[in-house]
Amino acid sequence: MQIELVCIGTELLEGKLNTDIGYVSGWLEKIGLKLSCCTTVSDNPDDMERHLKEIFNRADLIFTTGGLGPTFDDLTREVTSKILNKKLVLYMPALERISRHFQERNIEMPESNEKQAYIIDGAVCIDNNAGTAPGQFIETKHNNKNRIIILLPGPPNELNPMFESYVYPLLKKRFEQKISKSKTLHIFGMPESKVDELIRPIIDTERKLEKEYVSFTILAHKGIIDVKSTVSGANELIIDEILHNLKKEFYDILKDSIYGEDRDTPESVAGGLLMKKKLTLSLAESCTGGLVGDKITNIPGSSIYFKGGIVAYSNELKIKLLNVSQDTLSQFGAVSRETAQEMAVNIRQITGSDIGMSITGIAGPAGSTESKPLGLVYFGLATEKDSIVNKREFNPGLSRQEIKDFAANYILDMLRRKLCGYL
Amino acid sequence: MQIELVCIGTELLEGKLNTDIGYVSGWLEKIGLKLSCCTTVSDNPDDMERHLKEIFNRADLIFTTGGLGPTFDDLTREVTSKILNKKLVLYMPALERISRHFQERNIEMPESNEKQAYIIDGAVCIDNNAGTAPGQFIETKHNNKNRIIILLPGPPNELNPMFESYVYPLLKKRFEQKISKSKTLHIFGMPESKVDELIRPIIDTERKLEKEYVSFTILAHKGIIDVKSTVSGANELIIDEILHNLKKEFYDILKDSIYGEDRDTPESVAGGLLMKKKLTLSLAESCTGGLVGDKITNIPGSSIYFKGGIVAYSNELKIKLLNVSQDTLSQFGAVSRETAQEMAVNIRQITGSDIGMSITGIAGPAGSTESKPLGLVYFGLATEKDSIVNKREFNPGLSRQEIKDFAANYILDMLRRKLCGYL
Repeated sequence: MQIELVCIGTELLEGKLNTDIGYVSGWLEKIGLKLSCCTTVSDNPDDMERHLKEIFNRADLIFTTGGLGPTFDDLTREVTSKILNKKLVLYMPALERISRHFQERNIEMPESNEKQAYIIDGAVCIDNNAGTAPGQFIETKHNNKNRIIILLPGPPNELNPMFESYVYPLLKKRFEQKISKSKTLHIFGMPESKVDELIRPIIDTERKLEKEYVSFTILAHKGIIDVKSTVSGANELIIDEILHNLKKEFYDILKDSIYGEDRDTPESVAGGLLMKKKLTLSLAESCTGGLVGDKITNIPGSSIYFKGGIVAYSNELKIKLLNVSQDTLSQFGAVSRETAQEMAVNIRQITGSDIGMSITGIAGPAGSTESKPLGLVYFGLATEKDSIVNKREFNPGLSRQEIKDFAANYILDMLRRKLCGYL
Repeated sequence: MQIELVCIGTELLEGKLNTDIGYVSGWLEKIGLKLSCCTTVSDNPDDMERHLKEIFNRADLIFTTGGLGPTFDDLTREVTSKILNKKLVLYMPALERISRHFQERNIEMPESNEKQAYIIDGAVCIDNNAGTAPGQFIETKHNNKNRIIILLPGPPNELNPMFESYVYPLLKKRFEQKISKSKTLHIFGMPESKVDELIRPIIDTERKLEKEYVSFTILAHKGIIDVKSTVSGANELIIDEILHNLKKEFYDILKDSIYGEDRDTPESVAGGLLMKKKLTLSLAESCTGGLVGDKITNIPGSSIYFKGGIVAYSNELKIKLLNVSQDTLSQFGAVSRETAQEMAVNIRQITGSDIGMSITGIAGPAGSTESKPLGLVYFGLATEKDSIVNKREFNPGLSRQEIKDFAANYILDMLRRKLCGYL
């Protein structure tokens, strides 16, 4: 069975990041289904028609996202109806639902929303609880071949509930045959080619498998390397055992460079450790401007261990709020081991936290000197007992935002290492 | 001419966000070229071959990104060579370049990197100054049709310099015929369907055009609505005039809801205004945890107007660092008009900034009550003369991160409105 996703929206070809691909593939994976490819097309109806025609012709199960909105450039319904040669018909319960959506918000329903209540003749309407665009489930013969075509809205807050409450249960019932499970390990502090070299013996090992299929991918992003193992087959027990053994082999080689698994992030792992050890944390951020605090507070429940901190972007605030000494700043500069140390020690004292952390560095594009190059960052970590400062020189080819991201991941991993006793 | 982009990498089907699409289409747009679609395929060589075969068959100009790395799952070279039926040959200058890359970093070259020096027979090797994977420019007959196939690395810090220094100049020389220009207006504080209703008369107007083609797209993200007008044609003066007039019409209708154009972001616009008015800013963030400071410091030069601030995630720090009175917190709670006001006024005084801003709200999933629902956020803004507090109730269906993002955009837009005299 060939399964394809089509993401519709000119904005997706012009730079808007697309989170729907990973979302849909993640749910499919649970029942052993895999996307063969994802095609991104513009709102232009001619382009859309040309590509959808080919895709309806070659794939058995097709998901589309986007183009179901009320505006002039939302044309997925119309183009699909044309290709399938089926009329669009007004579906009264959908119209009532849309009217109610506006009534509940005390807004008059704009005329343009009416077209959202039209569905392809024979389609099942999928209710949308978060917005006005209903989805459509179409099971049909197209050029004499059986096709399932599912039209879904693009915005995640509308797509996700519809997928989880309607689409996924239906697919599970219809298609679950093979089981597929995967395990991703996240590594920090090693270049991708080094990780590749270390794990290659595991990847190249021929395994005596009956009906199972094992595959690997490796991926680097923001200083993090992900190694993902996927095992598919019919027997869940065997799959679990293979994954378990693979995981063990990876841990034996990569050891404490592995910071987490699957949905773990540097901030969720560090946060989990703080929670477990009942410790509190405060931050003194300079070059990251608040990014580390932002990441930490993306974790629900972070208020239990994260007190807050000071963003001392200017030297003035480093002195006034963080009590960094004028002498230290004059003698060593704001980007120095000494300043990082004072920032970490002082934020801990000022806030009464168990741990204080600091970041100061040069994210560019301006501000670098010969002795202090672009990408130089110092990281401080102070506890009741001691304080440490690490130094990193990130690739100066990175952008300002990339350096901030790498630095934020670095200090979160430094916190993990400290809490696990590796530092 | 049909132009397509193929992004290769299993991780892209599994959720890694893809910035290469917008990057490539942005450069193509400058010379009036448009992507017909973008296909995302996995590293699996069979999938890759099946889709690349179709694409090489139907498109005239094909870009691929990804799959040129040194690891086991980097197979774009191999699959392309197979489909085109051309050998891979070792290209010595590329090998020397790769060896030098490692020598300069005092690292022994891993054996796996050698395969990156192999190029398709007849291809032009495109140097990579930021990494080890060279690109390839292939001009060939495939099934008797002229094809240009350009293989490029996936990571932006490698792709971008190669594209700008080699690929774009070459395309410009070969293909520039039609000029295409666009203008995007960013709107804040209005729902998408309202913007659509207001601008529809402009969009539906028939214009007397000779050889020009006008198109529009509309897009909502994180509370921001983008309206983009694109004009293509042969005469740059006419194109400029059309765009200029369109822009004027949009401003007449949408007025101060338009916060910026093209690459403007809420943080760049607010930052530009602070810079122009020589004002300084400090922040007191609670529920956003540092996100607003992070956004502001993504703008190069922000150190001129941004002093820093306090992330008072706990009530304890709201009292200790921000001097919010215990009475206020007990009587009205941390998420209240009164607390927001004190936070803004106090951060301004503590830091000696011209403007103090505050955010306090309930980002969920826990912490809401009947009178203080999930999504409730207060925004404070204090100057020497006055202070204001705005209240918003964001859709409780949004995730924690979405509420943080919406709130950060809201306060940045509030700052713009204040600085422009609309508040």
